Amino acid sequence: MTEGSALFTDFYELTMAQGFWKRNMDRRSVFEMFFRRQPFNSGFAIFAGLESFLEKLKIFRFADSHLEYLDSLGVFEKPFLRYLQDFRFSGDVWAVDEGTIVFPQEPLIRIDAGLIEAQLIEGMLLNTVNFQSLVATKAARVWLASDKGSVMEFGLRRAQGPDGAMSATRAAYIGGASGTSNTLAGARFGIPVMGTMAHSWVMSFPSELEAFDAYAEIYPDRTIFLIDTYDTLESGIGHAIEAGARLAAKGKNFGVRLDSGDIHYLSVKVRKALDDAGFPKATIAVSNDLDEAIIETLSAAGAPIDSWGVGTRMVTGGEEAAFTGVYKLTARGNGDGGLVPVMKFSDNPEKTTNPALKQTWRIHDEAGMAVADVLALADPDSADGAEVLQVGQDHAFWHPAVDYRHFHYVPLIEPVALLKPCMRSGALLAPHPGLPEIRARVSDGLESFDGSYKRLLNPHVYRVAITDRLKDLKLGLIKEYLGER
Amino acid sequence: MTEGSALFTDFYELTMAQGFWKRNMDRRSVFEMFFRRQPFNSGFAIFAGLESFLEKLKIFRFADSHLEYLDSLGVFEKPFLRYLQDFRFSGDVWAVDEGTIVFPQEPLIRIDAGLIEAQLIEGMLLNTVNFQSLVATKAARVWLASDKGSVMEFGLRRAQGPDGAMSATRAAYIGGASGTSNTLAGARFGIPVMGTMAHSWVMSFPSELEAFDAYAEIYPDRTIFLIDTYDTLESGIGHAIEAGARLAAKGKNFGVRLDSGDIHYLSVKVRKALDDAGFPKATIAVSNDLDEAIIETLSAAGAPIDSWGVGTRMVTGGEEAAFTGVYKLTARGNGDGGLVPVMKFSDNPEKTTNPALKQTWRIHDEAGMAVADVLALADPDSADGAEVLQVGQDHAFWHPAVDYRHFHYVPLIEPVALLKPCMRSGALLAPHPGLPEIRARVSDGLESFDGSYKRLLNPHVYRVAITDRLKDLKLGLIKEYLGER
Repeated sequence: MTEGSALFTDFYELTMAQGFWKRNMDRRSVFEMFFRRQPFNSGFAIFAGLESFLEKLKIFRFADSHLEYLDSLGVFEKPFLRYLQDFRFSGDVWAVDEGTIVFPQEPLIRIDAGLIEAQLIEGMLLNTVNFQSLVATKAARVWLASDKGSVMEFGLRRAQGPDGAMSATRAAYIGGASGTSNTLAGARFGIPVMGTMAHSWVMSFPSELEAFDAYAEIYPDRTIFLIDTYDTLESGIGHAIEAGARLAAKGKNFGVRLDSGDIHYLSVKVRKALDDAGFPKATIAVSNDLDEAIIETLSAAGAPIDSWGVGTRMVTGGEEAAFTGVYKLTARGNGDGGLVPVMKFSDNPEKTTNPALKQTWRIHDEAGMAVADVLALADPDSADGAEVLQVGQDHAFWHPAVDYRHFHYVPLIEPVALLKPCMRSGALLAPHPGLPEIRARVSDGLESFDGSYKRLLNPHVYRVAITDRLKDLKLGLIKEYLGER
Repeated sequence: MTEGSALFTDFYELTMAQGFWKRNMDRRSVFEMFFRRQPFNSGFAIFAGLESFLEKLKIFRFADSHLEYLDSLGVFEKPFLRYLQDFRFSGDVWAVDEGTIVFPQEPLIRIDAGLIEAQLIEGMLLNTVNFQSLVATKAARVWLASDKGSVMEFGLRRAQGPDGAMSATRAAYIGGASGTSNTLAGARFGIPVMGTMAHSWVMSFPSELEAFDAYAEIYPDRTIFLIDTYDTLESGIGHAIEAGARLAAKGKNFGVRLDSGDIHYLSVKVRKALDDAGFPKATIAVSNDLDEAIIETLSAAGAPIDSWGVGTRMVTGGEEAAFTGVYKLTARGNGDGGLVPVMKFSDNPEKTTNPALKQTWRIHDEAGMAVADVLALADPDSADGAEVLQVGQDHAFWHPAVDYRHFHYVPLIEPVALLKPCMRSGALLAPHPGLPEIRARVSDGLESFDGSYKRLLNPHVYRVAITDRLKDLKLGLIKEYLGER
């Protein structure tokens, strides 16, 4: 079983864990998950996968057979394996709500736990959240491209394994898809299932017309003819109209699906044929390697398309198959329950991290539109306490990496704290919201961002800044390190 | 449970199945799985995922709760749901051996079964085989780029969901990876697990040197220092040499890992530092968004690298996240147990299928090198019987799509039939080969292809042709269809 198995972890987490255990270093530590750059050159991303992560965290255990496997490797000591036998996640989790619009550098999940617990869950956390955030972001882009139209997720057969299909269906629905072809995901998540017919239906009958008539007779209320098996314009549309006329005689509507050829050209011809035959309400569904760029072009050109079937490129991300989420230590225990902020420098400036426990504050203008997100210090136990952004006060906000760039802003509306507690000492603090609520959070959230941030190509870059105090801490740590050398 | 659930299918398969059932059309039918074009512009692909597919096929069932879910949709009749309750796959499966080098158009799996059985398994089959073939192909390219060196698969955290990691680890090992960081995959598949240390190890200690010394003390036989947490050349390598010297005093070797910055530049500097310090046997491992193109460049430039950690781009496919495998009806039952060959035309010529049951014959020259693959008719029950390519006879072989292109060839070595029976009436015909055997099939198979087919960029296109008789059948069907119109 993969689900909930604590063995689903990178091997080095286990060797490091044994090292921390032997050194008595299993102190309170804080890790933050964040991402470094937007996928698809998008102007925004959607955070998804939180419920899946928390559910796995609740049952994260080492099975006896797995401990025997670890024993067989000859790397682990018996007392450490006994320690793993009782392993449970007992820490605190903070996270942004699932379905929140998010940006690079912002902590999306904060794990405040013993060092070994925090370390062992890294792979499972990233695996779960990275993938669902990738697909939810892609789906939101596709949905925006369709002008918030009807998008069906059809990706099961090209998804990356069974769970690649299941997680992707969930995330695509969060991002804006209306339904799925994945029946198991329909059953498990309550997502509407839908579908038309395959070429094999048409080819299983002696002729296309017989295939269409048979389908219409069996499913008079849900008939969408797939019209490209032989030739869309020379054969398919004519037979669809013939079979559709018999449906119409019973007072039923019908639709057609295009799956090859030039979709714009064919949809215009097919629309005209349907209209000329007296079926202006017959619908046109399209599919065939669609993504947000193709859909936006067709939509902008006024192609008469009623619904979009999107498969491969939505459930895999298409040109970008991974979300760049990482999980980094931001504070280590000082041995007395207190914390020492830490940061990683690395040889790539973009891989330098922001130290300490942080909160993200989203600032809106008086019209309710998002202006900027600000990372502020969030450790209530620190000498100066957690930062709260005051309304009506002038703040200087700094670029997280480029030292001399900053801006001033006086928030007139209460800034919104994005990171919220969701697990304390290993126990959930509230039931999970339902998928429809998460889905609504995406559509509502997108409303509060100017259109320029949602442009698919070359979007406006949303401002993510750090406070004075976080900047001073960061520069102080860099100086300390340079001094040490 | 996803594993083995028959509900893991596209919804239209179920509505079509009910349609076939109501029409008494559940006759013997033959579907073939093949792919249309090579991923990554590769010159070859690796077929993988067969064992996983067959194992799921054996337990493909509808759970009672799933039938209740279907019932709740209001689309299915009770007698059909009762039929699904007893559903088992009872057909025949032919497939090429897992680990075989394969090319577009070639049938990789043939399902010879009742129409409903063959239809319902489509999504599961494609989902399983497409993904593993994608990753095995990518891994083989990475392994070739490394000059058949030591490649570690480190992709768990960026893989597409848990199974995206598990299946990918299996496929990457088949394709040539030496080991994985995914501990659960190690336990399940017997793949060697490996790993170094994370930045969090280094950051959890007051200083880099203390972190290195602690690790070396605990794991004297498996120490690889991650040297880029603060600064590779100014800090990391110096501390590694210092801690490594203490290891060397105990007669132990060590290694270092580079994870940021310019890998070529740094590896040369680090090699020199290690050599100058008297550690010519200390190894250099590298990671950081590697793929076959980067590895080939570094390898060709002579960068002194001993092992490659490859994550995201290997387990997701990177720039290409899906294998284009499809599953198409090639013959339908005539009602008397006989078969009628069928084909799909479609509005895109590249989506036109090859009709009838087919076998792929691989032709080798006298040196044992592969010359061409030929698709031939394979239905022993047809009027003319199955085709067998005779040694010593002159054959005309035709381009599968371009009518006038052909070549003549006299095979001097017995051609090899790639498609083999592996399941009869739902029962496996032989135990699965082990992973090491499949893995050896890849490396052996690659030996029999000229280097030009294995070139990573712009490879030689391997010839896949069709026989006279298949060409005649195809043209006959096209004519028949054109005549009908």
